[in-house]
Amino acid sequence: MTQPAELYQTHRELLARAIEAAAARDYWSAFPESPSKSVYGEDAAPAGERAFTALLGKPFPIEVPGAVGTVSTERSPYGLELGVSYPKADALALIAAARAATPAWRAAGPEGRAGVAAEILRRINAHSFEMAHAVQHTTGQAFVMAFQAGGAHAQDRGLEAVACALAASTRTPATATWAKPQRGADPLHLEKTATVVGRGVSVVIGCTTFPTWNSYPGLFASLVAGNPVIVKPHPGAVLPLAITVRICREVLAEAGLNPDVVTLAAEEPGDGIAATLATHPDVRVVDFTGSSDFGDWLEANARQAVVYTEKSGLNTVIVDSTDDYKGLLRNLAFSLSLYSGQMCTTPQNILVPRDGLDTDAGHRSPDEFGADLAAALDKLLGDPRRAAGTLGAIVNDGVLGRLTEAAAAPGVIHPSTEVADEQYPGAVMRTPLVTRLDAADEKVYTREWFGPVSFLITTDSTEHSLRVFTETVRAHGALSALVHSTSPQVLAAAREAALDAGIHLSENLTGGVFVNQTAAFSDLHGTGANPAATAALTDDWFVTGRFFTLQSRRHIPVPEQS
Amino acid sequence: MTQPAELYQTHRELLARAIEAAAARDYWSAFPESPSKSVYGEDAAPAGERAFTALLGKPFPIEVPGAVGTVSTERSPYGLELGVSYPKADALALIAAARAATPAWRAAGPEGRAGVAAEILRRINAHSFEMAHAVQHTTGQAFVMAFQAGGAHAQDRGLEAVACALAASTRTPATATWAKPQRGADPLHLEKTATVVGRGVSVVIGCTTFPTWNSYPGLFASLVAGNPVIVKPHPGAVLPLAITVRICREVLAEAGLNPDVVTLAAEEPGDGIAATLATHPDVRVVDFTGSSDFGDWLEANARQAVVYTEKSGLNTVIVDSTDDYKGLLRNLAFSLSLYSGQMCTTPQNILVPRDGLDTDAGHRSPDEFGADLAAALDKLLGDPRRAAGTLGAIVNDGVLGRLTEAAAAPGVIHPSTEVADEQYPGAVMRTPLVTRLDAADEKVYTREWFGPVSFLITTDSTEHSLRVFTETVRAHGALSALVHSTSPQVLAAAREAALDAGIHLSENLTGGVFVNQTAAFSDLHGTGANPAATAALTDDWFVTGRFFTLQSRRHIPVPEQS
Repeated sequence: MTQPAELYQTHRELLARAIEAAAARDYWSAFPESPSKSVYGEDAAPAGERAFTALLGKPFPIEVPGAVGTVSTERSPYGLELGVSYPKADALALIAAARAATPAWRAAGPEGRAGVAAEILRRINAHSFEMAHAVQHTTGQAFVMAFQAGGAHAQDRGLEAVACALAASTRTPATATWAKPQRGADPLHLEKTATVVGRGVSVVIGCTTFPTWNSYPGLFASLVAGNPVIVKPHPGAVLPLAITVRICREVLAEAGLNPDVVTLAAEEPGDGIAATLATHPDVRVVDFTGSSDFGDWLEANARQAVVYTEKSGLNTVIVDSTDDYKGLLRNLAFSLSLYSGQMCTTPQNILVPRDGLDTDAGHRSPDEFGADLAAALDKLLGDPRRAAGTLGAIVNDGVLGRLTEAAAAPGVIHPSTEVADEQYPGAVMRTPLVTRLDAADEKVYTREWFGPVSFLITTDSTEHSLRVFTETVRAHGALSALVHSTSPQVLAAAREAALDAGIHLSENLTGGVFVNQTAAFSDLHGTGANPAATAALTDDWFVTGRFFTLQSRRHIPVPEQS
Repeated sequence: MTQPAELYQTHRELLARAIEAAAARDYWSAFPESPSKSVYGEDAAPAGERAFTALLGKPFPIEVPGAVGTVSTERSPYGLELGVSYPKADALALIAAARAATPAWRAAGPEGRAGVAAEILRRINAHSFEMAHAVQHTTGQAFVMAFQAGGAHAQDRGLEAVACALAASTRTPATATWAKPQRGADPLHLEKTATVVGRGVSVVIGCTTFPTWNSYPGLFASLVAGNPVIVKPHPGAVLPLAITVRICREVLAEAGLNPDVVTLAAEEPGDGIAATLATHPDVRVVDFTGSSDFGDWLEANARQAVVYTEKSGLNTVIVDSTDDYKGLLRNLAFSLSLYSGQMCTTPQNILVPRDGLDTDAGHRSPDEFGADLAAALDKLLGDPRRAAGTLGAIVNDGVLGRLTEAAAAPGVIHPSTEVADEQYPGAVMRTPLVTRLDAADEKVYTREWFGPVSFLITTDSTEHSLRVFTETVRAHGALSALVHSTSPQVLAAAREAALDAGIHLSENLTGGVFVNQTAAFSDLHGTGANPAATAALTDDWFVTGRFFTLQSRRHIPVPEQS
């Protein structure tokens, strides 16, 4: 048995380095993103694949307190038969188990809990290949992306949350002495103790596209803050979180703690267990990633809890001018194509002035820019193998439905086409669709078209583009924004517009950094300042709602004068 | 004109020291609490009195954007004729003015805003005597208490909020560079900028008993975070906040800023301007101190805002045993008497086991303890002059009504009596009332009796007392708790009970520290963990809801290798 305090000692340097990196916001990563043998070892890839394959067609090995029966709800976007079943959760039993596990978890203290969390992340990292297959076959992400976004990057985001929660919850010293001078008398002496207490049972509601990346921050921040966590996966992407919860419970049990500090809440689609859990009086923290409809519902109805949501929005690109037109096109084409536009950060609305844009390759009208972008997409996705590795598969029929709807409208400048996968003939793959709109078509572009659907929108001027940007993002939210301009004045105006809109801004990305990617420990993800999210991954607001600092104080004898 | 940046330089050391103290939680104070000539100078007291007197019977000199007509709503609990009138606020005009003042305030940056805030607090401190009279004649606090709690201590709490907001909003560096290594290629280089943006218009709703102490944390935290603040005083205690807002506007104007960053919202009782302001879409932060009824209403209805409330609760004392019985009685009698029990931290429910308590003066039954406590109150308040200085005056008829109601019940062990004031014959003064109850009388003691009404409640045992304590505070909230015991086991159990109840705990206070007082920079006030408040003064949760950190990022050329 390894006590939490020992785990803290084991991971002390890692945690200190993570806290330092999160404060400096410079480049740092704890978990290598490359699936190469030189990093993870000769046997890691085949062992991970074997572990994944061994899970298929069976009940998943996990204990769920109070579960009755099983559910099996996943379908691989690559067409692989999964057939994994999970214990079907009972909301009240999970909450009771979480409450029972709370006192010992509180007693472990922030450092002990951070030690346990770091051990869990190390253990998850060791399962990165198994996890990559699980993420690929639930989300439709291509394997390398699943390894990175679902593995190393998610682990980094988890560790970032651990670091932020540990730093925030230990900012008030555990003990302090207080000596107040008194006129003509000895000073008043008090000893003061501060104890961190979790807010209560925490529920993390996962999404179908990034089950680990979007769930780890809430899961790990809540754990370090002293809360038991019920993990409620999307019925379409249970396996990555089931593996995660299994590892959490293993580490907890090995540390002599009640494994019910983390439990899995699998359900049939339509059971509505997320709503039942989120509105229970004992549930005091809710994390959610997914649709604005349900996110807004949670914010309005889970009134007894602090609710952290990441919802949808209108990710926007303002194109004014560039001195690297090829780079712009290549970069933007990749951003539209990566995971078939199924990222919460994929650009949707591309704003171009009616007069066109100046580039190092000459002036381009909106028509010409549209044609050039379509050509860049075709070039990027011309090789089917590379296309499959970039696009991944379509996660569900909802995305296909929107593609069909968008394809029927006039103005298509890049149609969506089918792509075949070598390994999985059943994979559902599509290239991005781009359609021309006018700034007046706001009924179309102020709605989120989650998936590979983007709009090239003509505006009166860059000034008009910035106005459309600010107004639409203020009203409907966004998780990313990008501006291309060679003009310092336009860049300055775009920065002000982004502050007004409440969104992070990327400028002139023409190389290997993409607007849809954020780096843990450096880039904040989401802002809280627009309707798409209520907090940023990971800022103090995201962690400080999860715990309280309670003091006690008592007199101590006045020290003798020597 | 002194720019915000210059004010930051002026107060840089003070701010650094305040941040250090708030982190260490040891003793520190920036503003001397003693009204003595040796501290504030020969002329400060008479000059302050003249300044106060000059305000009486006149329109208060302050500009309020869009105000129509005047209101005059205050009545001195000491019977002094006040007759001060204020511009009557128009909610929409105030919000429009606040919005117009926002861009320049955002541009001042966290340091510039903290410089302005520190200058305001220095200026308020220089008006401490004028403020003390204003606080005395609106709240009923005795002069020295008004000077301390309404002056120096409030200023310290304001500076603490400035320090916490400055530390939290500058924790993400304003600029960072990011260099990600690439296999077989140059690293990716980005420059990143972080900008602090306020959440939006902030409304601070003051209370009638501590208009400055309870309003300054929200006011100053919101200012530093980049928000304009509309200050809405209780109609019974306008003057202290009117003086505060006047000084804010002076300093803002001198710094070349729009004074409408801080405005005053005076109203007729019943106008309901607090509700109108708090539910307006542009109002994004609400601070409130007062009744649970309106606090709960705000939490339920001001959905577009982050709502920080401090409401009422059941402050509890658990008496188990003591080795300083005289000290216990003296300390508790003072806590019950100070400002006639009109503090949000005054003990209401005193729990004593049926078998009585062991003390250094022998065993005491609940009857004996009650008689001894009554005697200690009589001794403390025996001298009318000292009694007046401790009790102050009764703030309003609501308090008198509860006194009458409580006096009519059986079991009174210390009746409330009238006390006369030498200087103000019209002052309404009363000693505390203490009544015996049984643990079964929960209908009576689970209601807050704000004012000088306390209950000596007999329980089956100390264990039972702790259970009553935890259950009642979890359900109804509390802002203070005190335990007296010589047993390490009982003290440990009380600490656990306080963690379960979500309340700070004082232990064995028998000297010059009182359970109803908390010290800025060391003691947190309120916890967020029980229904009496949603945050602590001043923790990170209290400040991080007031701003967002927005990033922008762009490539920088790869440095040449030398």
